[in-house]
Amino acid sequence: MLNIVFIGTAGCGKTSLTYAFGKWLENELDANTSYVNLDPGVYITPYNPSYDVREIITVDELMKRGLGPNGAMVRAAEIIEEKIFEVSRKIHDLRSDFKLIDTPGQMELFLFRPMGPRFIEEIAKHSPTVSVYIIDPALASTLSGLATSLLLPMITRLRLGVPVVSVINKADLPEIYKVEEFSKNLHDLEKEMISEERGLIVDLASRFLELIEEFSKTIRIVKTSAKTGEGMSDLYTLIHEALCECGDLM
Amino acid sequence: MLNIVFIGTAGCGKTSLTYAFGKWLENELDANTSYVNLDPGVYITPYNPSYDVREIITVDELMKRGLGPNGAMVRAAEIIEEKIFEVSRKIHDLRSDFKLIDTPGQMELFLFRPMGPRFIEEIAKHSPTVSVYIIDPALASTLSGLATSLLLPMITRLRLGVPVVSVINKADLPEIYKVEEFSKNLHDLEKEMISEERGLIVDLASRFLELIEEFSKTIRIVKTSAKTGEGMSDLYTLIHEALCECGDLM
Repeated sequence: MLNIVFIGTAGCGKTSLTYAFGKWLENELDANTSYVNLDPGVYITPYNPSYDVREIITVDELMKRGLGPNGAMVRAAEIIEEKIFEVSRKIHDLRSDFKLIDTPGQMELFLFRPMGPRFIEEIAKHSPTVSVYIIDPALASTLSGLATSLLLPMITRLRLGVPVVSVINKADLPEIYKVEEFSKNLHDLEKEMISEERGLIVDLASRFLELIEEFSKTIRIVKTSAKTGEGMSDLYTLIHEALCECGDLM
Repeated sequence: MLNIVFIGTAGCGKTSLTYAFGKWLENELDANTSYVNLDPGVYITPYNPSYDVREIITVDELMKRGLGPNGAMVRAAEIIEEKIFEVSRKIHDLRSDFKLIDTPGQMELFLFRPMGPRFIEEIAKHSPTVSVYIIDPALASTLSGLATSLLLPMITRLRLGVPVVSVINKADLPEIYKVEEFSKNLHDLEKEMISEERGLIVDLASRFLELIEEFSKTIRIVKTSAKTGEGMSDLYTLIHEALCECGDLM
């Protein structure tokens, strides 16, 4: 049994990729797959969830009680955090080879609050767990956005404490070429920043950027598209490698 | 004229701090202050906005048209992005010494989408602009959360291209002591990560953490509380120093 947790910024295509990868596992590997929805705000999912956090609370319900959309999302996250043992036990009880876990639309509710780390801590006690960080080409197609997109999987690793693999999603979009172009020119960002300011902070920022650049050369990021089905087999290989915990990529 | 942009994760207290700092400027410096709301999802603000992005679109309106809360937030951000010149011109036209700009509840809509960078690029053409990154002690009171809280102002700097000052908000909460304790022990996180995995990625992660630790010793982070009024004068000093662009802190 393997837990695969899909994470990424709002609009990166988490739900579509969760579904597309699940279908691939079922069709290509004849795997027994279950889908888990952890987003209290979603209306419709393309998959039929085996466990759905909306049985505890929905954002809509809290809005009907008078909260604004932001407040309702934060409150829903708090309510789920209180029931994290129940949620993780129900997911643990599902019988499948692969449990594909789709996280809240707004990533910060999962990653920058106790919800994500506590949930992962619980489910990782029982089964191997890998997180898939989904890079949105719409963010990664500027220099600063690309640097940010490379820092976020690092933060995901830090926060969740399980192996993280990265994919660039929506590989069918034209932006994907820009991302590849910028990857070769990440050092330009360093030049840009250095010219503007000086002092200790800039020295640190420049070393940060050096590390990001080095990081971008070290990790293998696969391209995926829920639309065309591209990259599903590469993603599977990446997850497999991450679980070997060998640290060195093949 | 000075633009001050308040940024931070959902629930960190952006709106309350924007208002508390504005009141302090008005009362202590006899300053002419205007408040700007850039959150299409907020229901009530404690201040009376001189410009309000809800005149363009609200999350509620989009939800009435059938979108879910996540979809409505992303769509609202897109609609605002299309009108970013109009928004920035209207803010530029406000006549005040200080323009305090409150950003969307979910930080990723501003920081990890084109909205924030494009908006800042426009307003910074006309007046000096500083961003205040608000650290939530609820996030910063774990080791990985503190490291994340120190990386996010760096990402903010990278994305927005204007000076960023950092505050730890809600200084009236007991968590604030944990944050201070952890700040002294950031290197523990490195030990934790290294014991679990090995390889190139871990080497990079460990260098990242070293940098974060160094960064935490370099920057001066002030404690603020909208509730008690603590730290407003310190925040003012910090903003002033950032504008000197001297890079060295006093």
